[in-house]
Amino acid sequence: MSRPHPLDPLGPHEISKATAIVREHFPPATSLVFRVATLYEPRKAELLPFLDDVARGLTPAVWPVRMARVHVIAEGCTSTMEMMNRDTAANTVDCSGKGKNTDGKAKLEIEIDTEAEVEETRPLFEFHVDLDAAKVAYREHKKGKHSYIDANFMGRVQDACLADASIQAEIAKMALPAGSSVVVEPWEYSTDGLNDVSKRTTMCWFYLRRISHPDTNYYAYPLDLCAEVSDNLAVINIYRLPSAAGDRVHQNAQPFDDRRTHSSAIEYHPELRPAPRMTTRPYQIVQPEGPSFHVRGNAMTWEKWTFRIGFNYREGLTLHDVRYDGRPLFYRLALAEMFVPYADPRCPYPRKAAFDLGCDGAGINANNLKLGCDCLGYVKYFDAWHVEAEGTPLRLENVVCCHEQDDGILWKHSSFRSGNAVVVRSRILVLQTIITVSNYEYIFAFHFGQDASIHYEVRATGILSTAPMNIGDPVPPYGTLVAPGVLAPYHQHLFCLRIDPMLDGANNSVQVEESHAMPVDDPDTHNPFRVGYTTTSTMVEKEQGLDLDHKSARVFKIINEGKTNPITGTPVGFKLVPAYSQQLLAHPTSFHARRSEFGQHAVWVTRYHDDELYPAGTFTMQSSGGDGIASAIARRTDLGGDESAVRDRDIVVWHTFGSTHNPRIEDWPVMPSEKMVVGLKPVNFFTENPGIDVAVSTQENNKSVMVCCAEDNEA
Amino acid sequence: MSRPHPLDPLGPHEISKATAIVREHFPPATSLVFRVATLYEPRKAELLPFLDDVARGLTPAVWPVRMARVHVIAEGCTSTMEMMNRDTAANTVDCSGKGKNTDGKAKLEIEIDTEAEVEETRPLFEFHVDLDAAKVAYREHKKGKHSYIDANFMGRVQDACLADASIQAEIAKMALPAGSSVVVEPWEYSTDGLNDVSKRTTMCWFYLRRISHPDTNYYAYPLDLCAEVSDNLAVINIYRLPSAAGDRVHQNAQPFDDRRTHSSAIEYHPELRPAPRMTTRPYQIVQPEGPSFHVRGNAMTWEKWTFRIGFNYREGLTLHDVRYDGRPLFYRLALAEMFVPYADPRCPYPRKAAFDLGCDGAGINANNLKLGCDCLGYVKYFDAWHVEAEGTPLRLENVVCCHEQDDGILWKHSSFRSGNAVVVRSRILVLQTIITVSNYEYIFAFHFGQDASIHYEVRATGILSTAPMNIGDPVPPYGTLVAPGVLAPYHQHLFCLRIDPMLDGANNSVQVEESHAMPVDDPDTHNPFRVGYTTTSTMVEKEQGLDLDHKSARVFKIINEGKTNPITGTPVGFKLVPAYSQQLLAHPTSFHARRSEFGQHAVWVTRYHDDELYPAGTFTMQSSGGDGIASAIARRTDLGGDESAVRDRDIVVWHTFGSTHNPRIEDWPVMPSEKMVVGLKPVNFFTENPGIDVAVSTQENNKSVMVCCAEDNEA
Repeated sequence: MSRPHPLDPLGPHEISKATAIVREHFPPATSLVFRVATLYEPRKAELLPFLDDVARGLTPAVWPVRMARVHVIAEGCTSTMEMMNRDTAANTVDCSGKGKNTDGKAKLEIEIDTEAEVEETRPLFEFHVDLDAAKVAYREHKKGKHSYIDANFMGRVQDACLADASIQAEIAKMALPAGSSVVVEPWEYSTDGLNDVSKRTTMCWFYLRRISHPDTNYYAYPLDLCAEVSDNLAVINIYRLPSAAGDRVHQNAQPFDDRRTHSSAIEYHPELRPAPRMTTRPYQIVQPEGPSFHVRGNAMTWEKWTFRIGFNYREGLTLHDVRYDGRPLFYRLALAEMFVPYADPRCPYPRKAAFDLGCDGAGINANNLKLGCDCLGYVKYFDAWHVEAEGTPLRLENVVCCHEQDDGILWKHSSFRSGNAVVVRSRILVLQTIITVSNYEYIFAFHFGQDASIHYEVRATGILSTAPMNIGDPVPPYGTLVAPGVLAPYHQHLFCLRIDPMLDGANNSVQVEESHAMPVDDPDTHNPFRVGYTTTSTMVEKEQGLDLDHKSARVFKIINEGKTNPITGTPVGFKLVPAYSQQLLAHPTSFHARRSEFGQHAVWVTRYHDDELYPAGTFTMQSSGGDGIASAIARRTDLGGDESAVRDRDIVVWHTFGSTHNPRIEDWPVMPSEKMVVGLKPVNFFTENPGIDVAVSTQENNKSVMVCCAEDNEA
Repeated sequence: MSRPHPLDPLGPHEISKATAIVREHFPPATSLVFRVATLYEPRKAELLPFLDDVARGLTPAVWPVRMARVHVIAEGCTSTMEMMNRDTAANTVDCSGKGKNTDGKAKLEIEIDTEAEVEETRPLFEFHVDLDAAKVAYREHKKGKHSYIDANFMGRVQDACLADASIQAEIAKMALPAGSSVVVEPWEYSTDGLNDVSKRTTMCWFYLRRISHPDTNYYAYPLDLCAEVSDNLAVINIYRLPSAAGDRVHQNAQPFDDRRTHSSAIEYHPELRPAPRMTTRPYQIVQPEGPSFHVRGNAMTWEKWTFRIGFNYREGLTLHDVRYDGRPLFYRLALAEMFVPYADPRCPYPRKAAFDLGCDGAGINANNLKLGCDCLGYVKYFDAWHVEAEGTPLRLENVVCCHEQDDGILWKHSSFRSGNAVVVRSRILVLQTIITVSNYEYIFAFHFGQDASIHYEVRATGILSTAPMNIGDPVPPYGTLVAPGVLAPYHQHLFCLRIDPMLDGANNSVQVEESHAMPVDDPDTHNPFRVGYTTTSTMVEKEQGLDLDHKSARVFKIINEGKTNPITGTPVGFKLVPAYSQQLLAHPTSFHARRSEFGQHAVWVTRYHDDELYPAGTFTMQSSGGDGIASAIARRTDLGGDESAVRDRDIVVWHTFGSTHNPRIEDWPVMPSEKMVVGLKPVNFFTENPGIDVAVSTQENNKSVMVCCAEDNEA
């Protein structure tokens, strides 16, 4: 087997090896639950020279060390229990204090606060495993931090909940219709200040399955019951949900309202619906010479693009080392976080606020993109690997797909003098992944263009999260009624795209450009007809968050000040074409705002730091704020000096965008895709239209068919 | 031949008939230049009952009168010349006064101000011809108004310009390179206050054709020469263009700078370029059962949509009587105007400001969408008809195309419990037209969705309009250098989409909705966790212009207050999904702003008036302001009373959007398509996802191909 590229995700053998090495650090009897075993990406300082060597066709002088990042819960591992270290016989540490570093190289720290011992029955450890040397380079007890939530655990929570006598008593009070069954939907607990967040807690929301079909839409029957479940699966608290218009906290159980009859109108599964429309005729893609892309392992070549495909449990699809025609553009592109807070202010609804990456994971929730259903045409699928609780590798099949699409006209000109037209069609390369986070689906796709543009498209689809309300009551002002007794609460979807540029080199700057009318009646300005306008330009000097402004046509350019375009005489650059959207509505003093700092501004500029990948912090489960991008900036700004300088430095640009989703009935029972698009386009980076050399469109290649029948086109 | 539908564009026989009837109104020797012979659309009061009858499957009680609108220039027709009226022998009028109305029905007015006689050697007349009765129903001398500019006339202007001795003397001063030739690009004259706009004047901009190839890009060699040409083809004024950095008005001719050598880098035509990239493999659409749309004449049926396709010389593609599943949505949809003003404040550049519809015409400049080049797949083309100067019909071939596209995923849900996924692909129907206005191309397309959405996509492509500058001088702050000596000035593209709704009836309202955080620390508001938000809603009561605001997630809903959604309990509606863009930068007191009133605001709401189709006025050629949408609103507002009320009335919504286009070198020598998209989406109009009944995606229908070779996918 050839040596993996430093950016290749861990393969199954590497996952097994990493978890085996970690296992040796615990006493044999310790019950370990592996949560993460993923590539710990090389430090940029090591990797970038490697990538540049490869891009230049050179044999890299040095290969970065191959490292795994492992998260493991050591159930019952307390400070008094001995942790074994097999790296060297001498290096024996326990959970209660600092590990001894025997070789002087590897960083080895384990801290457990003895005060937290009682609380932490399931402590979380992070290991960095050097796979080349087959030893642990770093380990740390992530005290008070919680791991993400997963389907396995959710299943256990559901079972525990339904087995609980108090819950059963509450269910009985509702006098549910015969033949129905209760479904428990466990959610991450969004910090609201009412509970001790050092205790990992799961919120359980209750729904009703009216018929036995496995794909019946139980979100159509939200029940006014809610429970908190502890990490050791005990039901801690039970609530009745506020369901009457005036309710602030609902206290009395209501019997099920039998006006909520079942019909196919609430279903989305075709087996439960009337026959579909038969009017949409088949539509197929044929590529007689095959696709235009070339894949070797995770390396993609398409038209003048090269990049590497990465994947991890958290971000899902990541792109690395993106170059066009050999010129470096982006070191790394990935969705970095998502936040979905709900608008209903009544307890316990503020606990519905999901970090879909940090707490759920875009990677582990990625769909198997089954051939012929999710993608059309000539499709290349990529698998990924995750880790089972036991430490064994878990294949995630077909989690990324790659295919080409026709994208209409790339450019055209007709001379009105010669009558000749030149038309060039646009082909795009699509890298797509789709995730399911309970009720919602998100379709994430990078579109590469022949004009050297990249577009990142997000589609939101799936099913609205619902809440119960009393039939006949006025609809509360933070939701839409989608069926009798079913409220679809308002909410926001805030995405954060992390853009790590390397435009012709690692050091880049951000320039904010605006278009403004020239002054009138100003003796120093020649604007006699009052129609002139010019641009203003501001360099971003310090780390900060910035906002969009369409009224000034504000443009965010990432530029390399050290590289001048030979034609225009200006620095080479790419611009961010943002998705205009509202930022976080929750008040800045709320836990929502403190936890999702990236939701305050649309554009953030920070200095690059190897481990600063997540704009709401690394551990978002029941986080209480202060871990995000704004806090990181504030800390560095407080340090003064150079720490927060971002001009002509290795920088990262983060774009927060999304939708304020006040549901409409057309989003029910499953919502049509809601599209959001972000672009990255060259601005004076090249010396001409990068797509000028795409061949003209010809009927010989296109084989279009004229629908000729004048009066009707029945086939 | 069956009777034409009242919305069918005029056929060739009707055009001939209309011009023949008009011709009879002039003395036989009069030299007539026909400019327009197009359908004069029926009054809504007549047409809507007709359309409703047809939609209900009834035989319409009354057919609207079939009318033609004719514009004709009667060269040399002065007030002393007798105009013949053949309608009735008694009805003889002349150009100098009011016509006599013999039947008391038809409106018949001809006004010529004798003071304007001397100026108006080419007076413009408008006729409305009743084709059923074969007589003129209305005629008017459009005193001081000018007709649009066309290629024929531009050719005559170019020839006259080049034949002019003074021009030749100026050309000689430039010592142009051997083998090159001068190209004159006539443009409409944009009013700047310096000339008498009652005289139709054409601006001539000069370029150099360096090689003899008919498709060489002469925009790469702007010359610093400019001329004004009168309507009778005399060169009135000659300018040297400001070309040095400090120039305000350039006065001295410069010899051609021989550093401006010719290379393939400035060309776009494939015969003049190096060989294209050969990496893009063929990509074809196959629809084995044919397309899913059905066309009968101009009536389109696709999925649950029905609408009629219209076309005229000015707006180009228009859509009428748009219904979904039988429910009326839009009476008429069309691009209503475009304005492209340039930013360079120096005389004579403020005269570069084009109304591409009003002065050039989207219809007459529509491309022949040659099969296999502009469209892919199974394509239905539509011809249109215009009028020759002589009054004979002129076929405009293949000016509209219609085809289906796959549009990715319409909706999806996977149950994490059952593991089952349901995926439905999105098919869209595209109605497209492409226009060339001198250097620029615009691709206009309506996309109909299976989720009852309509998207209007505009792509701007083609070649930048350029201006000369001295090589080595600093680049002026209102342009980008795209080649040595070639400035691509900043400019704006402002589009105005006219949306005439009839959501479940003619009377609709506009509701402005915003999302706002709930107050904190307000004793009257229950918002203990500070995360609540609600919407505010304002009804638009009076005609006005409104602005976008992404910070409040401002939504513009068109609703029918008389029709309540049975599920949500709210009025049925559609929302405008706007394209966020800067509005007009020219100062409000400038002629630009006075002429393009629609550029002040992003959204306008007006009362419906049959002839109010154009937001910058009907006659935009050398207009001087006061004819646009803001003035119309002001006039009606001044009237007081009900005239400007728009709540629960027959209303029109206008959306102004576009781009502030500060060119980048990547837009040269031909620009990659710049996409802008506007949406119309149902909001609580239906009772569920309108695409819920689309059949699931299957491999049987899709016939996707898995690219399976792990290491490479060479075909």
